[in-house]
This record gives sequence, C-alpha cells and structure tokens, in this order.
Amino acid sequence: MAIEGSASEAREGRIRLGMVGGGSGAFIGAVHRIAARLDDHYELVAGALSSSPEKAAQSARELGLDPARSYGSFKEMAIREAKLKNGIEAVAIVTPNHVHYEAAKEFLKRGIHVICDKPLTSTLSDARKLKKLAEESDALFVLTHNYTGYPMVRQAREMVANGDLGAIRLVQMEYPQDWLTEDIESGGQKQAAWRTDPSKSGAGGSTGDIGTHAYNLGCFVSGLELAELAADLDSFVPGRRLDDNAHVMMRFKEKDGVAAKGMLWCSQVAPGHENGLKVRVYGTKGGLEWVQADPNYLWYTPFGEPKRLITRGGAGSGAAAARVSRVPSGHPEGYLEGFANIYSEAARAIHAKRKGAPVDPAVTYPTVDDGLKGMLFVDACVQSSKKNGAWVKV
Amino acid sequence: MAIEGSASEAREGRIRLGMVGGGSGAFIGAVHRIAARLDDHYELVAGALSSSPEKAAQSARELGLDPARSYGSFKEMAIREAKLKNGIEAVAIVTPNHVHYEAAKEFLKRGIHVICDKPLTSTLSDARKLKKLAEESDALFVLTHNYTGYPMVRQAREMVANGDLGAIRLVQMEYPQDWLTEDIESGGQKQAAWRTDPSKSGAGGSTGDIGTHAYNLGCFVSGLELAELAADLDSFVPGRRLDDNAHVMMRFKEKDGVAAKGMLWCSQVAPGHENGLKVRVYGTKGGLEWVQADPNYLWYTPFGEPKRLITRGGAGSGAAAARVSRVPSGHPEGYLEGFANIYSEAARAIHAKRKGAPVDPAVTYPTVDDGLKGMLFVDACVQSSKKNGAWVKV
Amino acid sequence: MAIEGSASEAREGRIRLGMVGGGSGAFIGAVHRIAARLDDHYELVAGALSSSPEKAAQSARELGLDPARSYGSFKEMAIREAKLKNGIEAVAIVTPNHVHYEAAKEFLKRGIHVICDKPLTSTLSDARKLKKLAEESDALFVLTHNYTGYPMVRQAREMVANGDLGAIRLVQMEYPQDWLTEDIESGGQKQAAWRTDPSKSGAGGSTGDIGTHAYNLGCFVSGLELAELAADLDSFVPGRRLDDNAHVMMRFKEKDGVAAKGMLWCSQVAPGHENGLKVRVYGTKGGLEWVQADPNYLWYTPFGEPKRLITRGGAGSGAAAARVSRVPSGHPEGYLEGFANIYSEAARAIHAKRKGAPVDPAVTYPTVDDGLKGMLFVDACVQSSKKNGAWVKV
Amino acid sequence: MAIEGSASEAREGRIRLGMVGGGSGAFIGAVHRIAARLDDHYELVAGALSSSPEKAAQSARELGLDPARSYGSFKEMAIREAKLKNGIEAVAIVTPNHVHYEAAKEFLKRGIHVICDKPLTSTLSDARKLKKLAEESDALFVLTHNYTGYPMVRQAREMVANGDLGAIRLVQMEYPQDWLTEDIESGGQKQAAWRTDPSKSGAGGSTGDIGTHAYNLGCFVSGLELAELAADLDSFVPGRRLDDNAHVMMRFKEKDGVAAKGMLWCSQVAPGHENGLKVRVYGTKGGLEWVQADPNYLWYTPFGEPKRLITRGGAGSGAAAARVSRVPSGHPEGYLEGFANIYSEAARAIHAKRKGAPVDPAVTYPTVDDGLKGMLFVDACVQSSKKNGAWVKV
Repeated sequence: MAIEGSASEAREGRIRLGMVGGGSGAFIGAVHRIAARLDDHYELVAGALSSSPEKAAQSARELGLDPARSYGSFKEMAIREAKLKNGIEAVAIVTPNHVHYEAAKEFLKRGIHVICDKPLTSTLSDARKLKKLAEESDALFVLTHNYTGYPMVRQAREMVANGDLGAIRLVQMEYPQDWLTEDIESGGQKQAAWRTDPSKSGAGGSTGDIGTHAYNLGCFVSGLELAELAADLDSFVPGRRLDDNAHVMMRFKEKDGVAAKGMLWCSQVAPGHENGLKVRVYGTKGGLEWVQADPNYLWYTPFGEPKRLITRGGAGSGAAAARVSRVPSGHPEGYLEGFANIYSEAARAIHAKRKGAPVDPAVTYPTVDDGLKGMLFVDACVQSSKKNGAWVKV
Repeated sequence: MAIEGSASEAREGRIRLGMVGGGSGAFIGAVHRIAARLDDHYELVAGALSSSPEKAAQSARELGLDPARSYGSFKEMAIREAKLKNGIEAVAIVTPNHVHYEAAKEFLKRGIHVICDKPLTSTLSDARKLKKLAEESDALFVLTHNYTGYPMVRQAREMVANGDLGAIRLVQMEYPQDWLTEDIESGGQKQAAWRTDPSKSGAGGSTGDIGTHAYNLGCFVSGLELAELAADLDSFVPGRRLDDNAHVMMRFKEKDGVAAKGMLWCSQVAPGHENGLKVRVYGTKGGLEWVQADPNYLWYTPFGEPKRLITRGGAGSGAAAARVSRVPSGHPEGYLEGFANIYSEAARAIHAKRKGAPVDPAVTYPTVDDGLKGMLFVDACVQSSKKNGAWVKV
Repeated sequence: MAIEGSASEAREGRIRLGMVGGGSGAFIGAVHRIAARLDDHYELVAGALSSSPEKAAQSARELGLDPARSYGSFKEMAIREAKLKNGIEAVAIVTPNHVHYEAAKEFLKRGIHVICDKPLTSTLSDARKLKKLAEESDALFVLTHNYTGYPMVRQAREMVANGDLGAIRLVQMEYPQDWLTEDIESGGQKQAAWRTDPSKSGAGGSTGDIGTHAYNLGCFVSGLELAELAADLDSFVPGRRLDDNAHVMMRFKEKDGVAAKGMLWCSQVAPGHENGLKVRVYGTKGGLEWVQADPNYLWYTPFGEPKRLITRGGAGSGAAAARVSRVPSGHPEGYLEGFANIYSEAARAIHAKRKGAPVDPAVTYPTVDDGLKGMLFVDACVQSSKKNGAWVKV
Repeated sequence: MAIEGSASEAREGRIRLGMVGGGSGAFIGAVHRIAARLDDHYELVAGALSSSPEKAAQSARELGLDPARSYGSFKEMAIREAKLKNGIEAVAIVTPNHVHYEAAKEFLKRGIHVICDKPLTSTLSDARKLKKLAEESDALFVLTHNYTGYPMVRQAREMVANGDLGAIRLVQMEYPQDWLTEDIESGGQKQAAWRTDPSKSGAGGSTGDIGTHAYNLGCFVSGLELAELAADLDSFVPGRRLDDNAHVMMRFKEKDGVAAKGMLWCSQVAPGHENGLKVRVYGTKGGLEWVQADPNYLWYTPFGEPKRLITRGGAGSGAAAARVSRVPSGHPEGYLEGFANIYSEAARAIHAKRKGAPVDPAVTYPTVDDGLKGMLFVDACVQSSKKNGAWVKV
C-alpha cells in the first residue's frame, strides 16, 4: 500500500439528515444510509421510514433513531422538523417513484435540502412541477444518479471536456440486466412488483429504472444533449405491464460541428447480465469505454495508438477522479463509494450554503434538470414506441 | 499437449482451384489461398489474378502457377479451363464487389463451383440474378461469410438449435472498426478507396462491408429470420460517399411463439476497435456471447446459474464445433482457421458431388441465399435511412 | 436494481472506539475510520493520532473529536480512557509496525479490545509476547488482514471447506506491486521511507508488507498450514535496506492425505502491477482463482466442466459471502467494504462479549495467531534466503 | 477488413519434406503438416509415419503420398531418399522423445535438414551427442519450440532487446494444464501413456513436456541466460512415474548490471487450465505480459504510465511481429500460425542454403542449442529436486 488517498475527510460539522422510506427490507434505503455515512458528512436523526406506522417505528428502533423523531408520514416529519431548532437540514427520499414529488415538495418549500432517488417522479407532469419547485426553493435538490459518482466516470467526462477525444461522433449506451427474465412480480417479489406497476413506477419499466441511468451517463460523459430519439419497446414476459426491453436510436444536438448519434439498449430480460451498464464514446481523435461492473478501469484509445487502461488513482488518472477517490490505485472502490460521492458532493454544497459561500465549481451532482431530462427521455421512448418507432423530439 | 484434434485431413484427391483477383497487394486473395491450403483439400492451378495483364502474370509467377494457366481475364479462364481435361473444378472470386456477378456467371454456367467473397454483389439486381443462376447451375455457390466457420460460432448455433436458450427474445450484433476514422481514401489507400466508392462497393459502405457480416452471424447463430428494420446511417467523415456508421433496430419473424428484437451497430469510425465483431443472443432460458477477437471462447449463462466459459475443444463444447477444429483446447485457432473451415466444408460438398453421393447434412456453409439476404439487408438499411429511419420490410 | 442486500445494519449500540496513529497524511488511518463507520457499528470518540502532539491535536480537531479525548500518547489514552465511565471499548492501532506491540499491550491489559493493522509487530519476539498477552487478556485482538473480508474470499474458503475442490494439491499466491520500482525512499516519500526502514518495518520489506497478506490469504482460503519454505529474497533497488522482491516455494502439512505445495511471489518492483494480489488453489476435483483488483468475481472450475464465473451475490454464491455483502450482485463492492467486514465481524464478537453471549461461530476475523504466523513467515523467508534458499520449518 | 498482411507468400520452389512419425491418431504430426503447408513453402513427399509398417502404409495412403516413398523405418527413408535425385531436402521428426536422437542422426549425416519436435531428446547424453552432430552437419537443425513463433512473442523480445524495459530484474513463467489431474495413463490414453513413461519421455514429466516451453520462452523474450535453479518436483497422482508439477526458482546471469531472478511453475494437475502458458518480464523501466491462450495481445506498462494493450498488427506493434504475421490487426492468428512461422523461418534459411546465400539475420528459429538448454533445465530440475531443492548450476 503506497500512496495517500485523495478524498478529504475534513468535516465542518455533520449535516442533520432525515429519511423518507427506507424501512427494513428496502434495499435502496440502506444504500443511501451507507452513502451518507461513508465520508462522515451526515448524521441520520429523523425518519418517516415506512408508510406503515408500525414498520416505521420498528425500523427507527433498529437504526437507533430517537423515537420522538420517527414520524408516521413525510408530511408530519417536514412540518415538525422544520420547527425544531436542530431539525434536519436535509432529507433523503428513497421511496418508490410515485411518492417522490409529494415528499420533495414538503421539504423544499420548508427550505430543507432534498436528496432524492431516481427517476425523478412517476409522471412527467410531476417532474415539471418539481423542477419549478426546486428552482423556486433556496434548498438544494440532488438526484442520486449515482453512477455519475464513480471516479472513472468523472475521469471520462474530464477527458471528453478536455478535447482528448476530439469532436464526439458516437455515444453507445447499454444497461442489460436479467432479473426480470421470468415473471416474478406475480409471485410477490417486492422489488419486481412496484417496478412493473405503472401506478408506482410511471410509464416506463426498464426505460425508467435503468434506461434513465444509461442515458444520464451517456450525456454526463459526452457533454452532449439529446435532440430526438426513435424507440422500440417490448414487454417480453407475458402479462408484464411495463417495458422490460428497449432499443433506442438517438440523435444529439450538434457540438463542435458534429451532430453525434447514439444507441441505447436497456433490458431486464438478458440472461447473463447483472448490472451490465456500459458507456462508450467515440470522437474524431479517440474512444473511451467504461463498464460499471469493473468501475476502476477506463479504456482509452487515442486514435492510432495502443489502447490504454487508465485505473482509478493510477497513471493517467486526473484531478476530477482524484477528488472523489479515497484509496490508492489497485484497491478497488465500488458502488457504495460512487453513491457516497453524490452525498459528499451534496455535503460540500450544503456546507457552502451554510456559510453563504459560493460552491466550489468542481462540485458536481445530478440536479432536478437531469431528473426532468430522464423523465422526458422515458416519455419520448414511450411515445416513439407507440408511433412505431417514429423520431420524437425531447 | 493432450487430446487429438478432430478435423480430418483425410483427402480424396485435391480439388483443382482457380482464382479471380487476388494478385499481389490484395489482402483477401492471400487469405483465400491459405484457407484453401490449410486442410489440403485444394490445389491452386490457374488464375486471372488481376485486371492488369502484367500484374496478373507477375502474380502468377510469384505463386508458382503454370504460365499457361495464368489468364488475362476471368472470362478467358472460364472458357479455357472448362475445356481442359484437368481444368479447374472450382474457382475463388476475390475481387471487389462489382466484379462478383459477372465473374460468377461465367463459371457457374460452365459447371465450375464458385467460392465467392462477400458481399454477394454490388447491386441488389445483380444479387437476384446471381441467385437465379446459382439455382439453375449444377455447380455449388459458396459465399465466404467466414465468421460462420469459427468453431465456437458453430457451438453457439448448435446450442440455440438445441433449445439451450429457450425461445429467443433478443439478438444484439455489433461490428465496430476504426480504420476509416479519418479520410484515408483521398490519400489513395487502396482498400479504403474501393470500399468507399459506390461504383465498386454498391450502396452500402460500413453496412455492406461489415454490417452484412454481423447480420449474417446474428441470423446464423439465432436461427431467426429478419422481418423488418429501421436504420440511421451516417457518413461522419466529410466527403465520404458511403455510410461509415449505421445504427439499426430489427424485428425478427416469430419463432417458438416469440417475435424477437435486435439491434445492430456497425462502424468504421470507432477508435479503439480493430474488428470488434460481437454477437449476443438472449432467450427465455439463457444467454450467449461471442466476440470475434477472442474466438475460442463462448460465454454461456443458463438463467439462474453462474456464467460459464465454454472453450473450443474444452468441456461443454460439442460435435458441431469439434468437426471444424484442428487442435486441442487451450491452443487458439484464429481467423484463418475459421476461413479455412468454409473452404473445407465446400470441399466436403464438392467431393460428394464428384461421387454423386449426398452431402453430409452436417456440412454447413453460406450460400447464395445468405448473400442475397445480405444485399437485402444493405438495401433496407439505405432505404430506411433515406426515409428517416422508417421501418422497411426485408 | 433488484435483490436486497444481505449485510445487516441492525445495531446494538455503537461501540466506542479510540485510534492510535492515523493522523493527517496517514493513508491507512482514514481507511480504518471508514471501515469502522461503514456499517455503523462504531463511534470514534478518542485518539492518540500522532506521535507529534501538535499534529495529534490538529488531526483530532479535523475529525471532530472532543479535545479532551485527544491524547499525546497511546499510553496516556489507555490509562485515561480505562478510567472513564464511557471510555473506549476498543482501539484501532494504525501506526507503523514497530509501535504495534507496545501500544497493543497498554490496551489489552486494561481489557480494551484491540483492532491492529498488520503485520503484527516488527520483531518476532514482540509477536510472541503479544500473542501471550492477547491470550491472557479478556479483550479481543483482531488483526486487519483485510483481504479475508472480501465476500468472494469467504466464498472460496467455504467451497474448499465443503470439499468442492477435493483434496488440495497446490496453492499459488502472488502479490506484485510496482510503486518501489525506483528509489523513492531517499526522496522522502513517507510511506516508502518507513516501509524500507528495518527499524520500523522489521526484518521483512515486501515480505512483511505484502507477502504476509498473500500468505495469510493462501492459508485462509485453502485451510492448509505451512510446514516449511525456501525463499530467495532480493533488494533490486540499489541501496534499499529491505527486500523488494521475494520468490518462495512452500510445502504444506498433509491434509486429506495430500501434502500440498505452493509458490508465493511478492514484489514491489514489478511495473504494471498496482496491487496484484492473486490466489489460486487447485485440488483433486477442481480449481479456484481470485484476484484482488476484481474482487467480486471468483473463477471456479470443477474438473472436467467449463469454467464458471461466480459473482458476489450471484448464482452459486453462498451463505459465507452473503453475510458479509451489502448490495446486490452486479454492483461491485471494493476494498473498503472488505475492510469494513473485518470491523463488523469484530463488532459482532464485541457485542456478544458485552452480553456475555457466545460469539456466532460464523463470525470470522484474523487473530493474533494469524499475526504470529505472518511474523514466522517473514522470519523464515529471511532465514532461508540467508541460507541460500534452504528449507526452513515454520 | 483493411490493411494488407505482412507475411510474404513469395516462394522459391517448394521444399521437399519427409516426415518421421505422425501417422493417424498422432496429434502433433497433423500440426506439423499444417504448419508446413500454411505458407506454401513445403511439399510432403515421403514418410516413415509409424513404427508399425501397416499403420505407416495406411497413413501414407490417407495423406496421398506416393506408396514408393512410404517407408517402414526412418533409417530406410534416410538411406533411400538421400539417393534420389529429387529426394527430400528436409525431414520433420514428430515421434515421442526417445526416437528423436536416432532419427535426427540418420538425416543430419546425409545432409538432410531436420525439423524436430521438442524436447530435443529423452536423455541428456543423447542431447549432447545430437548437438555435436548438428554442429558437424551442413544441414540445419530446427527445434519446434513453436511458441517463439507467435508474433507478439517476437514483439516482446524486440521490445526487451530495444531496452524498452530497461535492465531486466524478473522473469515469471508458468505453464499450467489440467489434463493429467487424474490417472488417465493407466486407462491407456495414448498421449498420457508415453508422456508419463520415463523410457519414452526421459527424466522429466511436466518439466520436459511443458516446463521446457515456458523456460525457452522466458529466455527467448528476456534475452537472459539461466545460471542456476532450485526445484521442487511432485507426482501428485498416485503411481505416476514422472513429475506432474514443478515449482522452480531461478537465478539468471548478470546482464546490464543486474542479476535477474525468476520463477517457473509448470503443472499438469491444475484444474481450470488448458494450456495456460504465460510469461511476464519486468525491468527497471517497464513490464510485459503475454498469455498463450490470447496470443494476439501483449500487455506493456512503461513504468509510471498507463498499461497499454499492443495488438498483433496494431499500433505499437513493430517489424519483428510484422514479418511473421499474415492478416491485419483484429483478426486473430493462433497456434497453427505460430507453429507455421517456425517452418517458414526454417524455409527462409533453407532457401538461402540452396542458393549459397547468407541467411537474413532477421530469420529466427530455435536451434539445437535451445534444445540442449531445455534438456539441461530438465536435468537440473530433477537433480535439484532430488537434493531437496538445492541450487543446481545449469
């Protein structure tokens, strides 16, 4: 073990955090809590952990929360915490999609920062309203498109921005999974049940759950904006109510004199893929490839030279990656560290807010705009597919 | 070194072979000659190796051909060889695409077997005529879609046919390259010049040159037939006359109660890819992945079990792969061996023809039908792209 | 995202933790703090963070420690905290090696649990004394051979113990790095300086720093005990005072009727390796391979079947891995999670101690015995090398 | 498909070749025949294909040999062919090891070039005699250490020779297999039977069969010469008469001021490995890694820079690789092509001999010296192991 890590632990007082959702049995709640804890920027002090009051109370006990600050509903939590002297400064919303908007509203309007799971909402109309609310609020709105927190994703984005790839021509995105290959929602698998239920997930199935991640990542790395798309959506599993596979062709807005093209494939019925998120970007001068399952590696080919393997913390890895890294090269960081980076970036912004100081321009996290873009993407996919794959502007 | 190879050397007298094209400096001609020689089924005895008579003669000398059997044109060769007692029994056509039809015609009508490079022709109309000719002729017509000769491609096809993957839902094909990232055709690079020239290549650039390979392979492995496609073609390099990138969405005909979908990406402007041909097939019971650059491996995931790495000649590799293998597992076979398998399969059919015996049903090689399908694919891509990506039936 | 993680957050009251060493600029201290925090089992409340009092105080401030509990020496901390009603229950020792013994002694004799970085001590004599102390103390002694915390290492160990590999014949270990390829210790690189200084590191350089990890891991996975070894040590960089490369042949004690053999290579001068720790185990029925840089994968070959890729949380991954996992398959966990597993296993044992309950037999962490074995390994390597590679019993 | 291949087909008249051994059922005979044929430098015209006269005759028929030139013994072949006007110019000896010496002698003394399978002989004494004979003969002696024919092995050697790695410190070699994990020799598996029989294989089992390959390759790439070794040999399978696993530590002669060290592991009982030959070389300036199963890749790390993937024919691949390549980058070449390169290099030397011209200094093939080195390596391994791993000079 050799070189010192780059991510700072320096704290300016932990941020008091509440949580909506995330009671026992909820996978993503635990992830958010670890992410909040990892760099010691937050302290979980309140929760409305379940829509079931008993479950909420029990989960609060298990997490060691003060029972007085375990609430029966997010609304109650927002009202009460806003009045406390040391009430929560930020809230993590980790419910199914259809709750995001109503919950976020209650906190934003009381000046409490919101860290919200993706996708932004379950309907496009909610998304537009939430964007408006977020813009009007003094509080921050942070969306956990967590994959943008991986150091080598930051590295990739920095290299594209630096012009290392020249003008971008192609962005190829994919996010195959296999966990919905069979109908497990009918059998009551909880994660599957709400994700395939339009009333909870919204109009998109795989497109909303994972397609938005791939799309967000493609844009984040390439710096491009989508102009229009053509999509072909399927529900391969008989009886499934939302798409479980999507093929999408994309046309991006012109940049550096080139109108780039792209493809996106997301699937929940592709046996052999756990979370096969991959982004590839090609320009006039070079190409990049990043794979989520092996996140400490970034493949970079300057056109006409041998392919290079850039590793997190290793030679060729720059400042953008270093500021969100903790351990030296060769010691892999993973999903939780990437997720924690979103929380820690938010913390840096919140600390600046506390002091009335400007936020360091290097601080980067997904916003309500990214969330709305994701919702527009899902909406465009669904529309295009209904129109037999016609091009739909976003 | 351990186990004996499976490919037989047993010969029934070498087949007398002629060649059209393939003079010095032609890459693919040398490949065909090695492929013909590898398993010792052929003897090259005549040639019309170049459209330039001097170059033809010189190339013939270099290859040790009898000068009397070095011809100035393919037509002359066809006429004269057909009259010789020991004239050629088969001819390899390795010219640019626009010559394929006229050359094949001269040999087919004289009963000489044709082994022709892909794509079939440069125009769809030629392709249709050639199909008719081939059907009327007693001679064989073999198209060197060489990737179907790789043992693990045969293995994949066998597994799909055996139902190991269940009903097929998805076929994802890609063939990225980077050699045309810049405009090298203007500088006179010979391979680039004819491949980007519509009069020699036909209507498709990347679609014809490599998209047809990926498409052929996807169908070969999955056993599916394409119903319609939607394509978005680009010529990213300014001034380029043919597509150098294509994004294609596909809908296959129903099989086993499922109408599969697919995507195909081919590109000549994707830095970091040499010959990145990859085919992935997913069904209700499992998934497969094969990558041309690492051809001795086949990744297979039975749904709900760990991913398995099947190797050529290794455990889990079956009869279809074994009959086109030469060396034990762990000793890689490559591109030339796969190419040779097409030649050797053709030889097995020719030997059967010689004896008036039926051809072993295991013998498998691409035919004029595959060639026509490729041409229809290119035509559909070009049409769809002109219609802004509308679905076009094939 | 699909399946719920398996690692429990359920807390029974955070354990009060102190830290010796780990002030600013110390890489491994930050790692220990994250590891302690990740699963929320500990609360850092006291520290003797540096041998320099100012640096200690400043580091304590940065970490938000109560200044009254920032001590100038570990001895002072041990004495004072032992008297506090809510004094620390456990201490993390993260200093250079030569301080381990003296520090551990002060806490163990006061009944404070010790979590100590590896290698155990800088001298074999200290190691033996420490073992005695640890055995006499009622407090736990936990050594952070962190690689044993990786879920797939647990999986590998479980498979060997289950007999999936049959009787073990071979254990191949390697841990190459490249960071000491050049003489950076002379230039004052802090990490390099103490690691190449015999007075701080002890008799072994690469053998002590990384060889012990590889050896520990080989034994942990295989369940074997070393009988004797033959070593050839080098200091390739001119002027270096400790070994920077070691080649070791090993003979293990007989088990299941087979006396296994092994090799171990550790190096700090192998360009291209960051932390290339790899362990391979082969038995009469199968083989396993695990690579630290890609820790979520375990390659398993049942003899005569295709190689299988077992993934953390995926099919084929069992109970031993699941109990130290947090997120679903396909979302990589890394070095910090593995490190945290050692802390969390220790916490489970400490919680049992608190209650006077027996420790769950599944709880697994490296002990003072493992530490002594590591010291004996280093000693044997040095001795053997001095005797020109003669076999030395351990 | 893009760039023209570099390997020349230009022929100066095929070399007349005979073969000793290699009748039906012999794996390596077929490999030699393909290797001889691939670049069209040879014509097989005579054979003593089996020690059983009937089998010899039948094999000759199958290969289409003139029955008059199918001989009952190698001696008869040598005598008769030497008298023919157009008798064989070269002979391939592809028998089990114990026949190599006697057969080679008959041809060398008649001025017929010998291409001989490895290892050189079955005894060290035969090896020394053969070396003397080869030196006295005007004919060439070529040993098919075929792995030195792989283009990227040539590339690696060229890079080391060019100083790209600086002074070499470490050479790590391994060649694990699994085919002898169980006792298949007792069951009559032919390949296993002679390879585990000291009277046919000589004193080394795995050391002779595959250890010699790894050792040869390590020296070929690094340009180093071995000074001494310490070995620990095992026969893990009960009743096996020769080693099936060897652990070897090596000390090389000083070069560029550094006395390099190395390790070699060869095994036939390591489940999961087919032909896991791997060579890694590390110097003061960089490191290299090459793996036989993926032979078109060479990993190169200039110290302090990102790892680079050099591909056969791709950027960064130089002249030494190009002259033994046939197809463009991205189209894999394999084992047979590497083997053919040894034959083609031999042909270039034989053609020069024919003309009395000097051999192009770029022509590179393994010689009797390499063969003797291999025998000395096996002998030293066996001696050292008998002396409990004492260092033995070679």
